[in-house]
Amino acid sequence: MKGPTSEPLLTPDEFMARLRAEGVSRYHDQHAFHDLMHAGELTRAQLQAWVLNRYYYQTRIPIKDALIVSKSEDPAFRRAWIRRIHDHDGDETAGDGLALWLGLAEGVGLDREMVASCRQVLPGVRFACDAYVSLVRESPLVVAVASSLTEMFAPDLMSKRIAAWEQHYPWVGAAALAYFRSRVTRARRDGQEGLTFVVENASSRALQDACVAALVRKTEILWHLLDCVHASSVLQASRV
Amino acid sequence: MKGPTSEPLLTPDEFMARLRAEGVSRYHDQHAFHDLMHAGELTRAQLQAWVLNRYYYQTRIPIKDALIVSKSEDPAFRRAWIRRIHDHDGDETAGDGLALWLGLAEGVGLDREMVASCRQVLPGVRFACDAYVSLVRESPLVVAVASSLTEMFAPDLMSKRIAAWEQHYPWVGAAALAYFRSRVTRARRDGQEGLTFVVENASSRALQDACVAALVRKTEILWHLLDCVHASSVLQASRV
Repeated sequence: MKGPTSEPLLTPDEFMARLRAEGVSRYHDQHAFHDLMHAGELTRAQLQAWVLNRYYYQTRIPIKDALIVSKSEDPAFRRAWIRRIHDHDGDETAGDGLALWLGLAEGVGLDREMVASCRQVLPGVRFACDAYVSLVRESPLVVAVASSLTEMFAPDLMSKRIAAWEQHYPWVGAAALAYFRSRVTRARRDGQEGLTFVVENASSRALQDACVAALVRKTEILWHLLDCVHASSVLQASRV
Repeated sequence: MKGPTSEPLLTPDEFMARLRAEGVSRYHDQHAFHDLMHAGELTRAQLQAWVLNRYYYQTRIPIKDALIVSKSEDPAFRRAWIRRIHDHDGDETAGDGLALWLGLAEGVGLDREMVASCRQVLPGVRFACDAYVSLVRESPLVVAVASSLTEMFAPDLMSKRIAAWEQHYPWVGAAALAYFRSRVTRARRDGQEGLTFVVENASSRALQDACVAALVRKTEILWHLLDCVHASSVLQASRV
């Protein structure tokens, strides 16, 4: 019986095509909760549920990025990747993604401290986000980087989200959307850098397959986060 | 039988005194190899052996610091600690400790690429340095930070080293000592910040004891590195 690692190495183009195909077909832009969001059909409470729960995901990003930094033996790679931590934690020059998200939380009418405490995060959301950190912690560097490649698909979703919120939820206020705006260009840059690194460093078919599997797992994590928010704020609410 | 965790919490002053006492009495400034170094009794080959092996330790620093960053839930702590990674990897404003160490390697007559490859590092040095990364990886945040507190004792050793090298090994050249110079003030700053964090966050006697144990383990790691260099470059050489 032929195992997956006995397959020949994919060419860079084949490998990129496979990553894109798996990513595009599984990305959470197609989730029913996003459909409702973009169609302007979410209530204020449902938007709040999403903002509150997604904040826990946001808090995991600098942690998983620090784990990725810890896996690299290359100062140049570490210098480049550490910028992602600054993008969320803030520094002299970079934005401050976590603070911007808390601004969004206030924009949708949530209490900043309550959101920051993460105490109302749904258990399933916590499990999924913690699974992301575990995936990164337990994977070799190139596979851990591959799990970030959902960034490639983020700019289009961000642009769509900004337009939809401005149209359908004007009460949120334009300033509160600053995080989404900051991500359009940063996600494009990060996605391209990540893809280049993964293609150059996945040096065996087994590593290529592990990279694809990590990207698939990551799409499952993002999808499950929305499943949980959708179930608790839309499906259960509609049964009442 | 009374376990160690049934002891009462140490006051901040008692805890700091215990950390200092354990650190001072075990710090590698008292190692025989350092005695030889400071007395000007090392040959060029012996200095080279130390520079080459210690470089592996230097390469572990940004890795263990990224692990420490990954353990914190506090953006402000992560922003502050990440500066230590920049101190070694370099960025727009900070120094570049690893590059400075490779400059030192050239200053003592070693090939820069050979040192950077770490392929001639002694096995025991590798084990000890890898044990440092494992200690940090497997410890809670405050204990991982405590393992860095040997920084408190570094400024005096650095000052003594600079004076000794200028006096006894003038052939190395003053520029090659830039890394040591950079550490005098940075180690003082880092040691004080680390101590403040450890004292404020070791909130039980069990955590206080674990912090002391981590500092002791760290002194063993630094000591063993010198044991290995001493045995291979001084003791075994003298038997020939």
